Amino acid sequence: MTGSRAVKPSFTLKELSRHLDVPVQGDESTRIGGLATLKGAGPGDLSFLANPRYAQQLSACRASALILHPDLAATVSVPCLLSRSPYVTYAKASQLFAAAEDSPLQNGEDNAVHASAVVSQQASLGANVSIGPHVVIENGAVIGDGSRIGAGSVIGRNCRIGANSLLYPNVTLYHGVSLGERCIIHSGAVIGADGFGFAFDGQRSVKIAQLGAVTLGDDVEVGAGSCIDRGALDDTIVEEGVKIDNQVQIGHNCVVGAHTVICGCSALAGSTRVGRYCVIGGGVGITGHLSLCDKVTVSAMSMVTQSISKPGLYSSGTLLQESGLWKRNAVTLSKLTDLSRRVRTLEQGRSDEDPQNSK
Amino acid sequence: MTGSRAVKPSFTLKELSRHLDVPVQGDESTRIGGLATLKGAGPGDLSFLANPRYAQQLSACRASALILHPDLAATVSVPCLLSRSPYVTYAKASQLFAAAEDSPLQNGEDNAVHASAVVSQQASLGANVSIGPHVVIENGAVIGDGSRIGAGSVIGRNCRIGANSLLYPNVTLYHGVSLGERCIIHSGAVIGADGFGFAFDGQRSVKIAQLGAVTLGDDVEVGAGSCIDRGALDDTIVEEGVKIDNQVQIGHNCVVGAHTVICGCSALAGSTRVGRYCVIGGGVGITGHLSLCDKVTVSAMSMVTQSISKPGLYSSGTLLQESGLWKRNAVTLSKLTDLSRRVRTLEQGRSDEDPQNSK
Amino acid sequence: MTGSRAVKPSFTLKELSRHLDVPVQGDESTRIGGLATLKGAGPGDLSFLANPRYAQQLSACRASALILHPDLAATVSVPCLLSRSPYVTYAKASQLFAAAEDSPLQNGEDNAVHASAVVSQQASLGANVSIGPHVVIENGAVIGDGSRIGAGSVIGRNCRIGANSLLYPNVTLYHGVSLGERCIIHSGAVIGADGFGFAFDGQRSVKIAQLGAVTLGDDVEVGAGSCIDRGALDDTIVEEGVKIDNQVQIGHNCVVGAHTVICGCSALAGSTRVGRYCVIGGGVGITGHLSLCDKVTVSAMSMVTQSISKPGLYSSGTLLQESGLWKRNAVTLSKLTDLSRRVRTLEQGRSDEDPQNSK
Repeated sequence: MTGSRAVKPSFTLKELSRHLDVPVQGDESTRIGGLATLKGAGPGDLSFLANPRYAQQLSACRASALILHPDLAATVSVPCLLSRSPYVTYAKASQLFAAAEDSPLQNGEDNAVHASAVVSQQASLGANVSIGPHVVIENGAVIGDGSRIGAGSVIGRNCRIGANSLLYPNVTLYHGVSLGERCIIHSGAVIGADGFGFAFDGQRSVKIAQLGAVTLGDDVEVGAGSCIDRGALDDTIVEEGVKIDNQVQIGHNCVVGAHTVICGCSALAGSTRVGRYCVIGGGVGITGHLSLCDKVTVSAMSMVTQSISKPGLYSSGTLLQESGLWKRNAVTLSKLTDLSRRVRTLEQGRSDEDPQNSK
Repeated sequence: MTGSRAVKPSFTLKELSRHLDVPVQGDESTRIGGLATLKGAGPGDLSFLANPRYAQQLSACRASALILHPDLAATVSVPCLLSRSPYVTYAKASQLFAAAEDSPLQNGEDNAVHASAVVSQQASLGANVSIGPHVVIENGAVIGDGSRIGAGSVIGRNCRIGANSLLYPNVTLYHGVSLGERCIIHSGAVIGADGFGFAFDGQRSVKIAQLGAVTLGDDVEVGAGSCIDRGALDDTIVEEGVKIDNQVQIGHNCVVGAHTVICGCSALAGSTRVGRYCVIGGGVGITGHLSLCDKVTVSAMSMVTQSISKPGLYSSGTLLQESGLWKRNAVTLSKLTDLSRRVRTLEQGRSDEDPQNSK
Repeated sequence: MTGSRAVKPSFTLKELSRHLDVPVQGDESTRIGGLATLKGAGPGDLSFLANPRYAQQLSACRASALILHPDLAATVSVPCLLSRSPYVTYAKASQLFAAAEDSPLQNGEDNAVHASAVVSQQASLGANVSIGPHVVIENGAVIGDGSRIGAGSVIGRNCRIGANSLLYPNVTLYHGVSLGERCIIHSGAVIGADGFGFAFDGQRSVKIAQLGAVTLGDDVEVGAGSCIDRGALDDTIVEEGVKIDNQVQIGHNCVVGAHTVICGCSALAGSTRVGRYCVIGGGVGITGHLSLCDKVTVSAMSMVTQSISKPGLYSSGTLLQESGLWKRNAVTLSKLTDLSRRVRTLEQGRSDEDPQNSK
């Protein structure tokens, strides 16, 4: 479908069964060369049904095998991998196929430092690291075993990168940033830039030097072009398992709780705390110094200006309309308090007339 | 005006007429050294009237020549280029002046690979390409004839860049990305980073490897800092002639139809399809799995959460107000359903009294 | 607290007093090794009280010294720096501690051009500049005395950077961009990319070459990933002392007045003028061709679609609610004009009955 892979990996269902720890129904020797959607799959592909509303696509699906919930096993004749969580099993299978391809980075020879990289003699590189062309690693930085740094990335003074992390090309880490193990940082991300702090002296903004740093836990992913600012005095903290999409902005001294997911283009202003297992939709803005408890979900493009202490689903914003109609409603909205007052006046008028209220 | 150009190109009106394919009125030998607005123009400048509401500026304009609609030709005494589309003619003239300057990139000698670039021996470079300092081009990448790659850009494994494309400095293409001919990609853009896909297993987010790629058609422009994610299984597709402004985010598996324009800071969540000839204003958010038909215009900062099947102009959001007034209206809005119910109650009260309704 | 600084600077209160130009109360020989919040401070730390609502934290604070307003001097027993603007004094102190650390960039030896940098022989470098690894500086660029350019940054043809400016790694300046003195540009920022201008010819978008440039005044700071586009004909201008946070987008031909502050993720569409001493909150969108007067404050995530001629605080948007309630209100809002009409009908009904109105 993508035409971009020279050599495609392949597995038998038996091999997949073993790697993914799920049983096979049907011919274990079926050979699988790739993953595909129910609609897009052809011979040699493995597909999956994660969402019941696509169940009617099963009959027409041309995949050689399916990842299926055991309850549906009887409804199909093709070989299956049976999983109580077909979507999770698909995710794990996708990793297997990705790992079987070439590395997404080509840093010259594997497990090597490219000749064009500039690595400080005061930096420390673990075993089996791969450092790409034109990478810069400054004094005191520590790169954990098996970590890979893509071309053009800059690792500032005294950064620490845990084992088996992957930085794509053109990532920038300012000095003193700590990453856990197995972190993935996408291109254009900037971690540890100055928080936005100034003291206004009546004439001009006096810069507040940002003396803290940034700490990311294990298994954090940061999307392309996202920024996480360093703290003013203490560190900005992103806990383990947090997944951050592209173009997200995390202000200084924020704390993002473990396993929270932040979708693209969202922003947290300074010193805000987001709990664990939250889901922040795309384009959401959260103002500074707020606290969101665990398991809060905020829908896309909402504006959060107050703390949230109860788990649940929250939203703001207005619905899209044809622009003429929108404009009339928007103008009326700008006088809504007045409209409300007029309704109250009418109600008082009625209640004066109402014999039950007029005694 | 800008002081940044050492040598300014110049053309006679006759030369411009030939290049732009529009007739001259007046002295063909008039020499033009630059373009300027009606207000900013001085001797030697060519200006233009594209918007009738600036017509009253014509009389005071000091330009040496004008691009003008033939209907207005009689109203001015300076030499003119007559065009039924003065704005398009201005656009073409601007390209002419830009082309007469030095290349926006200085990759050492033209048509060369800078000595500091790291180009895989398995990559293929077309004729007359220009590869800047510190560029990295990985295995299997194909760069079309006449394309120019700015300093520090990274072209991943198996990328394909069509002829005469221009990548400004510090662009990142992940592996397997395809660009058409005459594409322009601005600095900081990231094309082909992982789509944001995870399967939640009840404890943590399991990464879904993104096995698709990104395909851009001919004449696509992508602004500074914009991101277009690779597909999960199939490719993310941006069709020919699409123009994308800065800091735009296109999620995995989106399809953007030909000649659509997306203004700055807008975002399309995953698997959304936008039709042809749409105009997406700045800061717009479009949630995932939607479909917008051709010729939809969405005004700035609107939130699109449902598919649109009818061409037209759409909006959401509320009007700016002095904050105290805004706050009162916003609080009233948060009880709007209740207000609506109270109005219905009042109406029922009235209708009970109304002799026409009370029979 | 951050663990990222190998050698911590230290000062006596007497030294700080002299540097910060504020008097000491108490033991001048008290040695200070760092700054901390009232809550986080321990022995050796200097803390500060800038916001009266934290005054109750004073008693439990373990700092060795405080920056305090003279009016509160009698309330504490620890040594103090007395300042009528404690927050400004804290800001200056933070700069002092930051300056005492190593440079945030490690460009090899100080005051040097790293061997891997590619600097045009037609570029001009001032005294004591520091040019990092893999930097590219093109023809005609002028770098002022004492300026530092971080690794991987690209300085286009004919750029001018004033004295003592600091560009962090991976910044891109297109050709002809001018920066004043003491500017700070954070990683991933792109200054001078093409403004987003096209003339639609009925079939396709014809590119309008952007022939202007970008001019930044003295003491401008530009955040990580922010973009400031070059002008179409005239320059885009950011005046002295403007502070721009991360991921901000400034369209072509905007003018941002001196000392204005623009918070993260905000965007100005083309040709908009923002006055002096404005504060634009985070995530704000301002459409094109508007004019905001001096001293306008716009709250976070507001949409500005009309010019503002009166200083003050402005807002738009709706309040966050539990999603079910939000949805009902949003649907009701989409019929608000109708609701308003119904209220008018009710009022007219009442006024018909009202003996005072019925004469």
